[in-house]
Formats: sequence, C-alpha cells, structure tokens
Amino acid sequence: MDIATLRERNPDHWMRAAAIRVLALDAVAAANSGHSGMPMGMADIATVLWSKHLKFDAKAPNWADRDRFIISNGHGSMLLYALLYLTGYEDMTLDELKNFRQWGSKTAGHPEHEYASGIETTTGPLGQGLATSIGMAIAEESLRARFGKKIVDHHTYVFAGDGCLMEGVSHEAIALAGHLKLSNLIVFFDDNRISIDGDIGLTDSTDQVKRFDAVGWQTQEIDGHDPEAIDAAIEAAKQAGKPSMIACRTHIALGSSAQDTGKGHGALTDETLIADTRAAYGWEHGPFDIPADIKSWWEEVGRRGESVRSEWNDRVEQLGAGKRKQFDAAMTGELPGKLSGVIKALKKQVSENQPKVATRKSSEMVLEVVNPIMRETLGGSADLTGSNNTNTPDLGIFSPDNREGRYIHYGIREHGMAAAMNGMALHGGIRPYGGTFMVFTDYARPAIRLSALMGAPVVYVMTHDSIGLGEDGPTHQPVEHLAMLRATPNLQVIRPCDTVETAEAWEIALRTAHAPTVLVLTRQGLPTLRTQHKTKNLTEQGAYVLAEAEGKRQAVLLASGSEVSLAMDAKVALEAKGIGTRVVSIPSFELFAQQDEAYRRRVLPAGAVRVGIEAAARMGWDRWLLGERGREAKAGFVGMDSFGASAPADVLFDKFGITADSVVQKVESLL
Amino acid sequence: MDIATLRERNPDHWMRAAAIRVLALDAVAAANSGHSGMPMGMADIATVLWSKHLKFDAKAPNWADRDRFIISNGHGSMLLYALLYLTGYEDMTLDELKNFRQWGSKTAGHPEHEYASGIETTTGPLGQGLATSIGMAIAEESLRARFGKKIVDHHTYVFAGDGCLMEGVSHEAIALAGHLKLSNLIVFFDDNRISIDGDIGLTDSTDQVKRFDAVGWQTQEIDGHDPEAIDAAIEAAKQAGKPSMIACRTHIALGSSAQDTGKGHGALTDETLIADTRAAYGWEHGPFDIPADIKSWWEEVGRRGESVRSEWNDRVEQLGAGKRKQFDAAMTGELPGKLSGVIKALKKQVSENQPKVATRKSSEMVLEVVNPIMRETLGGSADLTGSNNTNTPDLGIFSPDNREGRYIHYGIREHGMAAAMNGMALHGGIRPYGGTFMVFTDYARPAIRLSALMGAPVVYVMTHDSIGLGEDGPTHQPVEHLAMLRATPNLQVIRPCDTVETAEAWEIALRTAHAPTVLVLTRQGLPTLRTQHKTKNLTEQGAYVLAEAEGKRQAVLLASGSEVSLAMDAKVALEAKGIGTRVVSIPSFELFAQQDEAYRRRVLPAGAVRVGIEAAARMGWDRWLLGERGREAKAGFVGMDSFGASAPADVLFDKFGITADSVVQKVESLL
Repeated sequence: MDIATLRERNPDHWMRAAAIRVLALDAVAAANSGHSGMPMGMADIATVLWSKHLKFDAKAPNWADRDRFIISNGHGSMLLYALLYLTGYEDMTLDELKNFRQWGSKTAGHPEHEYASGIETTTGPLGQGLATSIGMAIAEESLRARFGKKIVDHHTYVFAGDGCLMEGVSHEAIALAGHLKLSNLIVFFDDNRISIDGDIGLTDSTDQVKRFDAVGWQTQEIDGHDPEAIDAAIEAAKQAGKPSMIACRTHIALGSSAQDTGKGHGALTDETLIADTRAAYGWEHGPFDIPADIKSWWEEVGRRGESVRSEWNDRVEQLGAGKRKQFDAAMTGELPGKLSGVIKALKKQVSENQPKVATRKSSEMVLEVVNPIMRETLGGSADLTGSNNTNTPDLGIFSPDNREGRYIHYGIREHGMAAAMNGMALHGGIRPYGGTFMVFTDYARPAIRLSALMGAPVVYVMTHDSIGLGEDGPTHQPVEHLAMLRATPNLQVIRPCDTVETAEAWEIALRTAHAPTVLVLTRQGLPTLRTQHKTKNLTEQGAYVLAEAEGKRQAVLLASGSEVSLAMDAKVALEAKGIGTRVVSIPSFELFAQQDEAYRRRVLPAGAVRVGIEAAARMGWDRWLLGERGREAKAGFVGMDSFGASAPADVLFDKFGITADSVVQKVESLL
Repeated sequence: MDIATLRERNPDHWMRAAAIRVLALDAVAAANSGHSGMPMGMADIATVLWSKHLKFDAKAPNWADRDRFIISNGHGSMLLYALLYLTGYEDMTLDELKNFRQWGSKTAGHPEHEYASGIETTTGPLGQGLATSIGMAIAEESLRARFGKKIVDHHTYVFAGDGCLMEGVSHEAIALAGHLKLSNLIVFFDDNRISIDGDIGLTDSTDQVKRFDAVGWQTQEIDGHDPEAIDAAIEAAKQAGKPSMIACRTHIALGSSAQDTGKGHGALTDETLIADTRAAYGWEHGPFDIPADIKSWWEEVGRRGESVRSEWNDRVEQLGAGKRKQFDAAMTGELPGKLSGVIKALKKQVSENQPKVATRKSSEMVLEVVNPIMRETLGGSADLTGSNNTNTPDLGIFSPDNREGRYIHYGIREHGMAAAMNGMALHGGIRPYGGTFMVFTDYARPAIRLSALMGAPVVYVMTHDSIGLGEDGPTHQPVEHLAMLRATPNLQVIRPCDTVETAEAWEIALRTAHAPTVLVLTRQGLPTLRTQHKTKNLTEQGAYVLAEAEGKRQAVLLASGSEVSLAMDAKVALEAKGIGTRVVSIPSFELFAQQDEAYRRRVLPAGAVRVGIEAAARMGWDRWLLGERGREAKAGFVGMDSFGASAPADVLFDKFGITADSVVQKVESLL
C-alpha cells in the first residue's frame, strides 16, 4: 500500500502518527546520529495502542496500576521520546528532543531507565526489553493475586524487532511466558524484514508465528499500518487467556527513499531525503514544529487515564487500612520492621551453635527467617533449586494455577531469569531473587549488566563459587567471574565466609534499593568464624579485622568466602613461628571501597606484608594488596591462574596450592 | 514398555546397550558423583547410531572425514567415555573409567576436549554442544565445496537434552542451522521429560517438534528405546535435505527405581538401587566387568570404519598434488607462506602513508590482504558487517546456494556465532573470525569462555571498544569488558593503537594455534603512531617503548588502543614542562606477561612514576602500574569508574576526564 492511500484512508490517524515520524526524523537529523527507521515503521501501531488502549496518565507517570510500555528494539528510542513529549510527560520537553543523544539530555541514544518518566526499562541490547517484560507481567500477576483485580489490573505491551527475536534470550523469555500463561502480556513484532546487514533473508528463515505458537502464545498477523487491524488485534489479544504476539507487517523508514532497506534502519540525515519524506507524508511544518491541533489531540490522549486513575485511587482508599498499608509498603519497597530483628536473632543463634555448613545452606537459613516476614520476596532458580537452596517451605510455586506462589522454577534459563528479575524489580512490589551456579553468571551476563546500569535491586544467589565445586570440573568452576562482576559498575558483590556474614550479606542486599547484589556462595561446608555475636553488621564495611595479630603485626592476610577459614589456619601456623598475623575478612570490595580512607587504613595499615587469598583470579586484588598509588606494602596472592579441573574439592585446593601452607610460604617469602 | 519386554524384543541389542548403562552406573558409584540418568536413558540411541551409522575408526580418532559425535548434555559424559572404551579408543582404558572425575584422569566430570581422543568438544554448560555442532556442520559444508564430496562427506550427530533446548543459545543455533540448511546435522533430543528440579511440566510447555519445524528442520518423533525406530529415523534424517531433529521419547535412569524422576538425573550411588538395576537389566557381571563377547562386538564396531578410511585414503592419494597439499595444509592449520610478507608490506605502506583510521577499518585493511592468500578464513558478523568491517570483496556469502562463500551473515546471534566458530575451529580446515560490538562479548560470554578452555583458535573482532562509540550510550559502551576478558585464562586480548599494531595483532592471532584471540578495536579514527617501519612484530611482546623520554625519565605512561595517541599528546605537554616521559604501548597484557622479567623491567623500570591510561575500568592495570609484589613505583590511572553516557565521543572523553590534560595532572600529582 502506498503512502497516498494510507493518508487518504485514515487522514486524522495519519497526521497523528506522522507527528511521531517527523519528530524522529528531526531529532536524528539534529543529532546527526540515531535510528529513524523503527519509529517511522511502528508509528501507526504506537498511535493506536497509546490512544485507544494504553492505560496511563502522563501527569502521574509512576501510577502503580499503569500499563507498562516497552520498546525492546530500543534503538527506536525516538518513538518513545516522541510519544512522551506528545502526550505531555512534563520532563520530556521539546528541548529534550532537540538535544537527542547529547550530553546531559534525557534523550539518550537508547532509552535509559530513570533518565525520564515513562522509560520503564533500559533497552538497546537486543532482546532485553522483551525478556524484562516477562518479569513485569509476572509481577502484575503476583500482585493481583495478593491485592485483587480492583487494585492491580494492567497490561504489559512490548515492541520487538527481528533482532530481539533472533537473540537467544527471546527463546528463554517467550517459553517461560508461555509456560506461565502470562495473559496480560502483548508483544508487537515489527515484522519489517530488514536488519542492519540487509534483507532478513540474509540471516533468518524463522516462521515467527509458528515459533510463538510452539511455546503456547496466541498469534495474529496483521498489516502494521492499518489502524483498524491494529485495534482489533489488541482487542483479541486481551481476550487470549495467554500471552499474545501480534506479527505486524511494517515498512521500515516508511515513506522515505530508504524504505524497506538496511539503510533505513539507521540515521536518515540527508536533507533531500528528509524533505521528500515530509512531502510524502503531507507534513507542511518545520523541524520540531507540531501543529496545535495534533499536539492537543495527543495531550488529550495523555489525560485519558486521569479519570481511570482517580477511580483507582478511590478503590485504593476503600481497601482496609492494613491492606492499603501493605500495598504502599510493597510499592515503595519498604522493608518489614522485623527484618533487622530476625537477622540479628539468626546471627546470635549461629554464633552460639557454630554450625559447619556451606554458605549456600547459610543462605537458605536466612531465607527461612526472611521469607515468612517479607511477603514481597519472589524466589527462584534456573533448575538448580536443591543446589542453590533458594526455596523455603512457605513460598509455594508460582504457576498459572497458583498466582500466589512465590517461587519460580525458571528452567534452564539463567539469562531469562535475570532479565525477568529486572522486570519484577522495575515493576515494583516484588523483591526478586534467583539462583544458579556462579559460573553461569556468564549466561546471564547481559541482564546482570542491565541490573547494574538501571540500579535494579535484584539479588543473585550464585552458588558453587570456585574449584570447591569439585568433580563437575573446569566448565563449572568459576575463576574469572569475581573479577568480571567486581569490574562492573554499580554491582554489589558479596562473598561471605560463614553463616553470620551470609545473614549480614542478605540484610545488605535487601536494604539496597538502588543496586543489584550478587551473593557468592560455596558448595562446600565452612566453619562458623564469627563466633562472638555482634549486633552490628560488620559485612557492611566491606572488610574488617576478623582476628588480630598476637605479637608484633608482620603480616596481614586478606581473604573472602571459603578462603577466610584457610587464612585463619595460616595465622595459627604463622603465629607459631612468631610471625604476628592479622586476618582481614573482605566479603565485598565495593563496600570496602565506599568506606572512608581512615577506616581503610586502619584495616590495612602500611608496613606489614599483605597476602590475598581467594580461589579465583588475582585480578582486582592489587588495589587492596598494593594500595592504589603503590608503595604501600609488599604483597602476594594465593589463588588461581588457570582454569580448574575435575576432582574432589579437597584434592583441587591441594593441587592448585590454595592451602594454609602456601599462605605461610608466601608470607615468609615476602618478609 | 517395561524392561523385560525391551530385553526380550532385542536381546543382543539389549545387552550391548546395557554395557553402556552399567559402566555409567559403576563409574558414578566409584566416583560417588556424576550423572547416571542420561547414559541409562540414551544408551539405545547411542548403540544404534554408533554400530550402524557413525563413520569413525577407533584406531584413527582424528581421521579428517569422520563423523562428529557430540553430547551437548555433557553431564552424561559417562555415555561417551563408555562408548570410547567399548569401541577400543586406545587412550580410554578401563582404568580411566574407574578414575572417573578424579585428578589427572581423562574422564572429567564433563567431557573436556583434548583430555582424550574422541572428545570432539568440551560440553557441560548446556546448549553449547548443540551450538558448537552448527559450526562443525558449516565447516563440513565449506570444506566439501572446496575439496569435493569424495574427500569431505560426513555427518555431525548431537545428543541434546531439555536443558540444552531451554537455553537461549539453542534458539540462535537451530535458527541459523535451519536458515543455512545444514543437511548433514542430525540432533537427537533426549525427550525424557525430566530436569533437575523435577518433571518438565514444572518449567516448560514447549512443543519442541513444532519449534524446530518453525526454523526449517525436519522433525521426527520416535521411541528412544526401539532400535528399529532409531535406525529408521536416522536413515530418514540423512535424506532430509535440511537439518534433522529426532525427538526420542526416553526414560531417564531407565530400569532403576529412580527412573523418570529428577533424582534419576544425578548420581545414583545407592548399592541396593544399583544391584536391583543390574538385575532388571539381566546383567550378571561385576563392576567394570564387560563380558568378552560384548566387548568384542563393540570393538568390531570400532573397526567398522577401517576399510572406509582406507578407501578414503586412496581417494586422497588420487587428488592432484596441489589439491592434496592444500587439504593437508588446511587440516593441519598450516599458514600460507606469504602471510608474513603481506603483513610486513602492509605495515610498511601504512608507516609511510600514515592514515588516520579507526582500528576496525585497520582490521579490514588487514583482512583485505590476508583473505585472498588464506583460503581457510571464514568471516562473519552478528549483523554488524558494515560496522565491524569484517567482510572483504573476495569472500562471497556462505549460503545454501553457495557453499563456497566464506562470509556468514550470522544475524543478531552473538552467542550462536561464537559457539559456531568454536565448532569450525575444532572441526579443522577453517580459521573462523567474527565480529560484533565489544560490549556484546556479554552475549557471547559462555562460548568465549569455552574457546579459551579448549584453546580453540577463534578470532573475535570486537569493535566500538569504549565510550569512543559515542551517542549509542551506556548500553553500548564497554567499561568492564577488557577486565573480564583479561581475567579469563588462555584468552589472548589485543587492543592495538593503530593500523601497524592491528596488522601485527592479526598476525599473532593467526599464528596462534591453541588459544582464541580477541581483537579490541575502535569505532573512532586514530592517527598512525608507528611511523617508522620495523619488520619485527613489536605487538608480540605485549608492551614496548613507543617513545622514549627526552630528558631524565621521570614518568612512564602506559596506554592501549585509542589512548596511546592521548599518551603521546600528554608526553609532549610533560616534556614541555621538563618532565622526561616515556610512552609504553601495551596492546596485550597476556603477551607482556609471557615476556621474561628482564624485558619487562626494561620496559617498566622502577623509579619513574607510572600512569596507566585506558578508557575502561582500572581493574587489571595495577599489575603493571604497581608491580606484582608492590613497592615498585608510585602510580595512577586515568580511565573509567562508572558506566558511560550518550553524547558525541569527543564530548565523552572530555566529560569523563580521559584527556591529555588529566594525564599531565595525574603525573604531576605523583611526582
């Protein structure tokens, strides 16, 4: 169908959608950078969705019961920014559009969560928006079960392109969504048959409709430029009783000379092309100039949710005081008052009983006291429930038949799990945690990075954290993963040495509202080292003196996790040789870095030789061993400099030389 | 169907398959660790495949035209070890089976490539074997097109479980295989409806047959314990003209009391259970005792390929001398004699002309001289061909219609691409390279780790390597990725500063037979810094003095990639202030670490202050800045300590303080 026909058939709709298209063209031209093609291709779908279906109130962008709208094909960010501007989101001004992709603007190249209202999640790395939306839909189902349909009743709408659907994470996400029958999830596939390299025939032959059908979705195929078909498809999707995928045949860079080409995917900045496209659209206004009638129609769209929200507010008022308080607490992320108490009680009990348990088991002990008092937790594992120790008896399984369940069997889908947890955390009302083996942070890496970039308070329960995993061998033994995680900005990595530190780590993770936490836990049993109960959370300092030197302090041993007990053994041997030795437990590099310099110097005084001990790569340790400016101390490291091997754990520690003896020798070589 | 019926229907087959089953039970019991269920479930399929179809010769495990056999569900490693032992692979002795999962054995928990003959690839991280097999099948097609069907004509057979098929990478792999119509690829899906957490109904509702059909595969459904059905399905798969998936309904841990349960997935070590299972099998022999008739039948299977191989040898003899030399060179990874010459010529020309180009463009310049003389290269990109600069005019596109093509449009499948490249490298005859944005090493991470673990000589062309990427913003700007890659054992990371270093980096990558290389390249243009032609490959030293201090040496600046020119600018400013400054280019930490200490001390003498400069996280730098034992030098770093932002690249370098001015200030603060 040509542009002229499209214009004639629905002249009003056409010009409203054209407003999105020209804003995208104008902003990309101003930035001389960006992606024009997706907004030009998906503007019709967006116009119908936002004006007829999307439940939102531009003046109350964080309204809890709003529909969530996500563009997973995040390079089409101008589509979202244009919608936010047109419908009257206050912080999305015309100046922001003019400053598209410039320093300090809210209009980054890809949508960045929290840069502006209405950006529900950060997208750009393909497939992430789609996978994140699964978590939002789960959160909605879970909260509806808890608070009722009068309070929680919204949809999650997703735009996704070929790129999103080629990424592996899309499979994990849609299979999980289909299995869980997330009926309030509606995905629009931008079936434009173009990717950066050119025609989709170069790279893919997938029958996407059949593929979604195979994982339990409703599927429809429509002309993505036909407003009536779009409207009807959304209506049908709402009735599906399962997640719905609408394959929308669209034309990338519609109406330009780059239509239906790989070039159309990118930045269309040629003046003649832009002028010709405007002419084809029948758009007679200058750059960034939206005529008043069109702008006011869109603003009316932005106000459509006002009355709905007002009615919703009334219903919230009518909740009993207790329920209402619970709802507010959940949505604001307020922690239960009892949390601190149950953690302290567990610490005290453990310091007294001094069990020898793996920290993955310690984590389970914490969850057993936290889950009953914190209704917001929603746990899970990527098919390693019994190994990650992530389930507790009170949770129940989240399923189509039991939306009150608080535990998800994610299947062997580490990436999908991580992205879904991002979605839950961003949706609000849920505190997600999920487990897998530490080495499989690799599989979840792109979503973990987004947790950090967005500051989403997700808790990753990563067990089997070193060669201590034993016989499964090098494919399953992390070596470089602590370095990888610690190098990632805004990611809180905690590797506790016993149950007390594990309890403190969980408390920190739950108290942290604006960063993800990775709990790094052992497979193998560890002694309780914190045998003197302290109410204070020592782990919060990142590192602290666990045991002081008996004589003159000549050596400081720093260790994390399973290697702290080994440091304690080495201390005994060193003291016996007259070498006064301090042991510093350093469960978290990031938290220690946040302490003031005076504290850090007290923990790591200059002079004494320092030896770091961790069954992992040395990378990242030198900051503490040598001091950032250098010259602080002579130092060494006992750890891994190769991949692991397959054998019982104790054999591996011995063969790789991560032993108290090695530590003693290292200290002596430095003195 | 019960065990008794199975035994009666095919008594000979039954006992031969039972040999696999009991060896798995015995080895797991001896190790008190491992996974019994998969071998017990898939033994019938393995027996039919190996005895009737698999082309191999146990005495010549590396025969180039053998079929490749991969267990993607690698936890079932004992299935493979049992087959290798039974068929007479010389290095797989009974003692190795008895030492399953012990230090130094060839029988690691998961199959480790090169631990023993017949282990075609390392598996265990789920989905990897399947995705790797795609690359093996591509290699086979490519080599057949080059050398003819008489010389190259084999199949790739894959065992895969539910876990493999839930992992996202499976989608990338099977969609690519379907698109490329890899008709010699046959996958057996172990449809046992059990995962670790329990019944598959807990985690998945996928119709796998429909799913594979949606991406262009032939599909069949059979009883995985019926030898005739298995045989017939393999015959049909060979005729499919496209990749084939055989869904085999099996019973995990067949015949034991743990059959069809999550428990059956793991280690069955209970003595009674084992005894009862042996009885159910009608197996009257002791642990690790295989009766002579069964062993000799299996050894006959192991010899079945002898005559076929002998005929193949004759055909190879009959190739013309030139073609035969080419084939041998390809399969042994011999480099073209001209390689060194074309690299030197390019370096010389560049040193003279001194172009200002991005190193991604430099990489293209290298490929333009290498690809024409090195027929083994097979390039590609995950849908960023024009950005990664990975294609050259002579390659042609690899497709079902053009198996001679040497360039693959991988689509938006970074993970699938990396795993496929592993498969090509392991298959032999191909030197794969592939590109994406540096930040998307995240997506490919699990396969990159396997490249390193296996020492697969894959070349990763990772462009847009820092905030220099500019407007696309923080989701697309690597910060922690250099640290992550450098922390990975056996991974060669090279970040060249100009075209000369890029040429040297490519030469190193191609000369490296036993490790993968990551080339870390810029989006933005960089000046030529190596303006004096040297035939020697300086990059091979990892770091070297690019410019010496003019007066007394007070400062040493170390930088990689795009920051080396910035160091050169800072040097000018520092020298103007009378501060003698050496500039060290450090394109590769790993290669520098391999130099002897004397060389390293010459490059980084103690005393002078050191400043490292890299638009990335500091992690990993302190080894060079401070010296591993500490106290070597006062030091500082100019780089990133947060995520990036969306703005033009020059603005970002300025705003994040990665400038010559910052370097000057840092040096002055340390003096």
